[in-house]
Amino acid sequence: MSRPSSSNRTPTKNLMLFSGRAHPVLAQEVAELLEVDLVPTTAYDFANGEIYVRFDESVRGCDAFVIQSHAAPINDAIMEQLIMIDALKRASAKRITVVLPFYGYARQDKKHLGREPISARLMADLFLSAGADRLMTVDLHTAQIQGFFDGPVDHLLAMPILTRHVRSTYGDRPLAVVSPDAGRIKVAESWANALGGAPLAFIHKTRDVNRPNESKANRVVGEVKDRTCILVDDLIDTGGTIVQAAEALMAEGAAEVVVAATHAVFSGPAVDRLKNSVATEVIITNTLPLADAQHFDNLTVLSIAPLFAQAIAAVFEDGSVTSLFKD
Amino acid sequence: MSRPSSSNRTPTKNLMLFSGRAHPVLAQEVAELLEVDLVPTTAYDFANGEIYVRFDESVRGCDAFVIQSHAAPINDAIMEQLIMIDALKRASAKRITVVLPFYGYARQDKKHLGREPISARLMADLFLSAGADRLMTVDLHTAQIQGFFDGPVDHLLAMPILTRHVRSTYGDRPLAVVSPDAGRIKVAESWANALGGAPLAFIHKTRDVNRPNESKANRVVGEVKDRTCILVDDLIDTGGTIVQAAEALMAEGAAEVVVAATHAVFSGPAVDRLKNSVATEVIITNTLPLADAQHFDNLTVLSIAPLFAQAIAAVFEDGSVTSLFKD
Amino acid sequence: MSRPSSSNRTPTKNLMLFSGRAHPVLAQEVAELLEVDLVPTTAYDFANGEIYVRFDESVRGCDAFVIQSHAAPINDAIMEQLIMIDALKRASAKRITVVLPFYGYARQDKKHLGREPISARLMADLFLSAGADRLMTVDLHTAQIQGFFDGPVDHLLAMPILTRHVRSTYGDRPLAVVSPDAGRIKVAESWANALGGAPLAFIHKTRDVNRPNESKANRVVGEVKDRTCILVDDLIDTGGTIVQAAEALMAEGAAEVVVAATHAVFSGPAVDRLKNSVATEVIITNTLPLADAQHFDNLTVLSIAPLFAQAIAAVFEDGSVTSLFKD
Amino acid sequence: MSRPSSSNRTPTKNLMLFSGRAHPVLAQEVAELLEVDLVPTTAYDFANGEIYVRFDESVRGCDAFVIQSHAAPINDAIMEQLIMIDALKRASAKRITVVLPFYGYARQDKKHLGREPISARLMADLFLSAGADRLMTVDLHTAQIQGFFDGPVDHLLAMPILTRHVRSTYGDRPLAVVSPDAGRIKVAESWANALGGAPLAFIHKTRDVNRPNESKANRVVGEVKDRTCILVDDLIDTGGTIVQAAEALMAEGAAEVVVAATHAVFSGPAVDRLKNSVATEVIITNTLPLADAQHFDNLTVLSIAPLFAQAIAAVFEDGSVTSLFKD
Amino acid sequence: MSRPSSSNRTPTKNLMLFSGRAHPVLAQEVAELLEVDLVPTTAYDFANGEIYVRFDESVRGCDAFVIQSHAAPINDAIMEQLIMIDALKRASAKRITVVLPFYGYARQDKKHLGREPISARLMADLFLSAGADRLMTVDLHTAQIQGFFDGPVDHLLAMPILTRHVRSTYGDRPLAVVSPDAGRIKVAESWANALGGAPLAFIHKTRDVNRPNESKANRVVGEVKDRTCILVDDLIDTGGTIVQAAEALMAEGAAEVVVAATHAVFSGPAVDRLKNSVATEVIITNTLPLADAQHFDNLTVLSIAPLFAQAIAAVFEDGSVTSLFKD
Amino acid sequence: MSRPSSSNRTPTKNLMLFSGRAHPVLAQEVAELLEVDLVPTTAYDFANGEIYVRFDESVRGCDAFVIQSHAAPINDAIMEQLIMIDALKRASAKRITVVLPFYGYARQDKKHLGREPISARLMADLFLSAGADRLMTVDLHTAQIQGFFDGPVDHLLAMPILTRHVRSTYGDRPLAVVSPDAGRIKVAESWANALGGAPLAFIHKTRDVNRPNESKANRVVGEVKDRTCILVDDLIDTGGTIVQAAEALMAEGAAEVVVAATHAVFSGPAVDRLKNSVATEVIITNTLPLADAQHFDNLTVLSIAPLFAQAIAAVFEDGSVTSLFKD
Repeated sequence: MSRPSSSNRTPTKNLMLFSGRAHPVLAQEVAELLEVDLVPTTAYDFANGEIYVRFDESVRGCDAFVIQSHAAPINDAIMEQLIMIDALKRASAKRITVVLPFYGYARQDKKHLGREPISARLMADLFLSAGADRLMTVDLHTAQIQGFFDGPVDHLLAMPILTRHVRSTYGDRPLAVVSPDAGRIKVAESWANALGGAPLAFIHKTRDVNRPNESKANRVVGEVKDRTCILVDDLIDTGGTIVQAAEALMAEGAAEVVVAATHAVFSGPAVDRLKNSVATEVIITNTLPLADAQHFDNLTVLSIAPLFAQAIAAVFEDGSVTSLFKD
Repeated sequence: MSRPSSSNRTPTKNLMLFSGRAHPVLAQEVAELLEVDLVPTTAYDFANGEIYVRFDESVRGCDAFVIQSHAAPINDAIMEQLIMIDALKRASAKRITVVLPFYGYARQDKKHLGREPISARLMADLFLSAGADRLMTVDLHTAQIQGFFDGPVDHLLAMPILTRHVRSTYGDRPLAVVSPDAGRIKVAESWANALGGAPLAFIHKTRDVNRPNESKANRVVGEVKDRTCILVDDLIDTGGTIVQAAEALMAEGAAEVVVAATHAVFSGPAVDRLKNSVATEVIITNTLPLADAQHFDNLTVLSIAPLFAQAIAAVFEDGSVTSLFKD
Repeated sequence: MSRPSSSNRTPTKNLMLFSGRAHPVLAQEVAELLEVDLVPTTAYDFANGEIYVRFDESVRGCDAFVIQSHAAPINDAIMEQLIMIDALKRASAKRITVVLPFYGYARQDKKHLGREPISARLMADLFLSAGADRLMTVDLHTAQIQGFFDGPVDHLLAMPILTRHVRSTYGDRPLAVVSPDAGRIKVAESWANALGGAPLAFIHKTRDVNRPNESKANRVVGEVKDRTCILVDDLIDTGGTIVQAAEALMAEGAAEVVVAATHAVFSGPAVDRLKNSVATEVIITNTLPLADAQHFDNLTVLSIAPLFAQAIAAVFEDGSVTSLFKD
Repeated sequence: MSRPSSSNRTPTKNLMLFSGRAHPVLAQEVAELLEVDLVPTTAYDFANGEIYVRFDESVRGCDAFVIQSHAAPINDAIMEQLIMIDALKRASAKRITVVLPFYGYARQDKKHLGREPISARLMADLFLSAGADRLMTVDLHTAQIQGFFDGPVDHLLAMPILTRHVRSTYGDRPLAVVSPDAGRIKVAESWANALGGAPLAFIHKTRDVNRPNESKANRVVGEVKDRTCILVDDLIDTGGTIVQAAEALMAEGAAEVVVAATHAVFSGPAVDRLKNSVATEVIITNTLPLADAQHFDNLTVLSIAPLFAQAIAAVFEDGSVTSLFKD
Repeated sequence: MSRPSSSNRTPTKNLMLFSGRAHPVLAQEVAELLEVDLVPTTAYDFANGEIYVRFDESVRGCDAFVIQSHAAPINDAIMEQLIMIDALKRASAKRITVVLPFYGYARQDKKHLGREPISARLMADLFLSAGADRLMTVDLHTAQIQGFFDGPVDHLLAMPILTRHVRSTYGDRPLAVVSPDAGRIKVAESWANALGGAPLAFIHKTRDVNRPNESKANRVVGEVKDRTCILVDDLIDTGGTIVQAAEALMAEGAAEVVVAATHAVFSGPAVDRLKNSVATEVIITNTLPLADAQHFDNLTVLSIAPLFAQAIAAVFEDGSVTSLFKD
Repeated sequence: MSRPSSSNRTPTKNLMLFSGRAHPVLAQEVAELLEVDLVPTTAYDFANGEIYVRFDESVRGCDAFVIQSHAAPINDAIMEQLIMIDALKRASAKRITVVLPFYGYARQDKKHLGREPISARLMADLFLSAGADRLMTVDLHTAQIQGFFDGPVDHLLAMPILTRHVRSTYGDRPLAVVSPDAGRIKVAESWANALGGAPLAFIHKTRDVNRPNESKANRVVGEVKDRTCILVDDLIDTGGTIVQAAEALMAEGAAEVVVAATHAVFSGPAVDRLKNSVATEVIITNTLPLADAQHFDNLTVLSIAPLFAQAIAAVFEDGSVTSLFKD
């Protein structure tokens, strides 16, 4: 016979961007930066709360990026993303990258006591089990969580976005970088370096070591007097810690306090606390959606979308993501 | 040296029963029938909705049964159960049986269209990934779902509980067993046999085949005139199908209609529809929790707890579960 | 040094088609439609029945499609396909798609009784274990079997091929679509829609509900009088059910009966029964091989090859398979 | 509450023995030696050759041993055993040991050429995938196959059974142990040691190295003149090699030739060849079933059943299997 | 037949303790406390460095604990333990617990830079792949490493052993607990609590924040003047950090410095540095072996053996390990 | 919106070559033949022997080949390669091929006794667990080891390289090919064929079969008198076997002895033994590194680099590796 025993073609790689319903505004912004549309998707809840998802276009062979931020109601957001991954796997997507602007359950990253779960590992396993090939996220609670996923993890850093704003707004004043907690000084140290060697300080939330039976106090360690204090954290949940830290700094003679954090979880009383706090400005990114009522006067929201768009483009083009971290 | 190179003991197998927060009343009832207490467990939600679980007693080496019904909010119920399994695995439980009085997402058991998930398979995979060794459940939407889990599945049947009540209440009247849907006639057939050969009928919800452009009609197929019709289904969700079926039966001259179903999902308008329906009685089991406001006059709730208690005891004692199905 | 640290090339994707020995005629027909040759393969049985397979050309990096229909002797057909997959995996095929014109053991898709296997799931696991990346098949016994395989499944439908023939042959007569079994009405409903809203009927094989101790009867439900009845099923095994159904239809006054099924298993007495039946025509596809002696006068065999050829081309080109279903 | 939060019991371990349909006589003999009955099992073929299996007793929690020899039709025997394992896994057997008196496809244990399968590894993977925890077998074609299974393998040796017979029958004559093939001399060496230091010889099947273009010759290497030659192999398939080896030995002046092998595959012309060969006696074990017509005058069949019974008992009792090898 | 279809027995669980060659003295001490002998094991290196291991007794069905501390040469220690696990798995040990007094590669627990491994996760995966069921270790570098292993991890704490010694020796003097590094203050805090509320301090190794271009300085933060400073860390590798920290404390007016750490890695110059340091006493445990030349006058070695013996006994008896942590 | 919902590009495949520190000269030679540079890599040992590796360039999406020969210290070489694979997996290499000029632990390929490991399988599993997709190696100790890895294995043969040298040097003399061991005659047979039908002989290392209590003797079997004997083996470890075989050949009247082996392990006394042996020439390849002191006058080292370079190019280009074996 004269026919060949194989048929050839040059493959095309195509990037497709999918969004769950947790934070569509961010996904849309990433899509615009990548100059693609989000893949049209039908998604709704059945009467009993079960989630239904279907993609309205062929996804066969695509390089899929599934954006979902684990916003409240957090378990719905996670389950929707798992279901999207399952649908992509069964519809023959070539590679599935889970994009997590906020990684849920990251704080349960170890057993503090016996008979606890390690939920951050469980999440990594659930995504793997559903069919994820890789993860992309930003500012994990602890960097060790990268090791929970059995595959590549692109761990982005929001610091350059935040420090750029701080430098342009407060760059001409005497600064200090302050960690609200002894466990996060290393992050503050990176900030201090990025801000040109600003002094470093932190809040030691502890019992007075000489009077252990009394209640906890917020001791400021380091030079903050007459300085613009940049109080940095990975996330703001109920806001209690950060607001008390700000007060302690003012009590120690700080000139002003600026709060900066990547993830605005803003649970329960957070907005009220922050709005009424001594902080001059609260700087966050939009890794999580904010309701209109969660905005307030001295709140500044910087967009994380360009960072994710660049990283997705680099992953799709097989470029280096590491280079994104250089400011 | 004269010491032996091994130390021996006769092992003890101990059953421990765990409950999530979705349906504690049922779990408590199962525990009482098994004459054990539920293992004391600390479980709460963090401010942003993340679930925390810890067991307050050692679970090392136990034969764990983790009861959680996938009630609304359903994704929270599933996630809590996954987290409990993770905690048990890491705390060295010897065997983990997932007990699902209601298996969430069972209706998404195949791709109806391209690019859909098969969420019922995804659930099975998530439980496996978290550390489950076996599943126990009752009246799955389709029996094929047993094959979605890579391990033993004990699939219990509620029919004997329901038919016992029907026989004692309506046994002296002329009966008919009716399926509300052509796809579920085989279940109705088992009922007909269990009720001593009652006539079988069903509702054919279809376009009139001669006038395909008109709206759907509920055609009754089979002998129902002057009979007490037992309308059986696996679950009642919003109640629309079942209530229309009941009306169609009355229109065909049924003497009365009795509704029987295992799972009372009772979403949205279900209670109002059932309360105001033509049905003489609505018989369900307590696989799902009902709020006080969801009870109504002609509602009869039979307990599924004895069935689960017997099955758990049989599994623990390595006895036969098959024998439970013999009425 | 001035050399680069990587060497680049634009990859080529090449489709290769492999056939086991169960149904070479179909594989050859698919190959011709795809304009490739089947990959030359050495395959024979050792004296004790062990199967030997070797591919006579390099398969490294290819997109492999392995066609084998699970024809009798069925276990040999399955084992040969598993061995072919193992050889492809070890010879560095890039992707392996298992093409199953007939999926063996599909009817054992759940436990009907305790201590039974779920052989349809076992088959999916065996293919996965041997190295299969994806499955392609047509008209599974139940659609849930798609969920048994942990990966993409392309589930094709033969209905458009069959209905096209029916329309052209019987389109000018009054039709009815009939299901031989209550459990398969949904399939018949699709047919009725595809045939322009033909009336729907089915055979209720049951004990007469008023005389349960008597033997089973085939009750016809629906309008069939004076109509050309298209009796549809997924497969014809020994032919008993379908032949009795045809008789029942004629007894109810049908004008004629046409039998249509995708899979012609044709075991034991099937050919004799069909040949001597009241059916005007028996329409099947060639998903399974037929011996010359299994052909008879009123048998029409339509080719499934174009459907598989189109689907394989779409999978290879990363096109949509869903679009194939639109007639 | 005063109830405990766990319920305790001392577990019982129970051995259950299952047999496929390939070699029931051997399984029955093993059962009798273990003083248990084979578990009653329903097994039959559907019309199209699909195998159905169901166990007629509860197997929950048992220590299951599934005996199946891979006799012809070999693929049916393997598939039946896989299906039995699936059924045991889903019915909650505690541990599943696959007992293989003859391990099919063992000779395809490496790639002799490119693009071949390694079917012996595939078999190990299929058993693992179906749910097997451990394997037990005897006299594998190469010992490396033990490493193909990811779990414990008990590799028994039939040599003590065979040499006991040889010693008692021929112990007073001058012996030589002969390997029919250069690749199996190490096995013959063990025999020579077990027979008290008998001389060792083998057949070198090769082209005459000085005349490479001529046909292969069977050269006898070692001292065989006037000796009773024990010609040993792992299996006899078509018998060609062994019969030619026997002739070569007689031609070299052997007093007599006794053939000994563990596995009597006896394909095609084997029985005729052996029956008409120069061998005084052919000694085999019953790892594979023999039809009545496959017996002949100088054939001696020794039972492997006691070896398997002892090994199964040792595995069940957690005793040492290694000790069984000491004659 | 009158025989039963199963044979029953009450199982016995037997603990067996195995030791690699990295730290036999510790393993022997644990064995003595458990009143068993170490399982006799043949282990040696081949000429090219490949490791050979064989157990000299049956291990079938045992509850195996495999002790190996990852001492130098560290890769040999790890490989020997992996090989021991493989041998146990293949010899049918029932459960394999890997006991790691020192967990190698724990410091590479995240990617500090792109294109780095996460070797601590790799180790967990290698142990799992070889056949480990569970891990037991003490004072991991970061607690998140527990989440790297897909199974139970018993993470023991040496602090009670160390603080008991400190209390009895220095309990009557004014104490301070000092962390040598900002990242480990939480550990020091536990110590402070365990020592009855001793003041807490730490060394801030940083550029002077006001003069960032100058070299790093060790700033003491907290009250140390005239106090006995207990300088605590998880491990001492080359000793540089700890010795400089001790000097900084003395420079700040500390009365004396006592060094305490769990793991005495003692690489390179460590012993010389510590011997000549200002520290009054260096307290370590014997999780790693010390050569005679590595002992010095003010070195105190406390035994970790009782902690491991208790934990192994608790795991074997299915008791609570959590309770071991209560001093 | 007018934007497309996917972004397309034609992918590029890029080959990257990585080397561990065990045998950099060979890796460099392979790189030069492939006309690429080795990827710049930072690799060193920490003070306690832990290995650190980082790649200095982006490896995202590359087709990675990781060369490491398992030279002494062998466990360090293996661990370094595993760590490199982990780093590549986490840095998103597209495919990882492990290139093993010498495969460590290949000789432990079965259980010779109970309770031994099968270390050659363990190695295959460790590479898989770390993230390897495929293996490439040369002249495995037994070909069955190919079946230990669950994926493609390219098993190269060095024989053409070695026989080319033998033919050109000794082609005009009367040759004999000799195996030093009965178990490796099949390899010698390939050599004999490759050398144009040279006579075949081998050394039978055994107790004199007639005097079993005396020490082992090396009996030469086959025609060697007055011939140039090519003594072939897969590896030379301590050299004892090969040197004694050479002596036995000379004692039998061989004209000269030439030793040829693929892997020069050269442990302990090997070099002294070979240097002082009767062999005219010792021909090896450079699969393992040799120190300067390990070279001696009659040692000829042939490069294996062209073979690996060709095979790597073929794998990268999806060409046939089988064709490389044709001389």
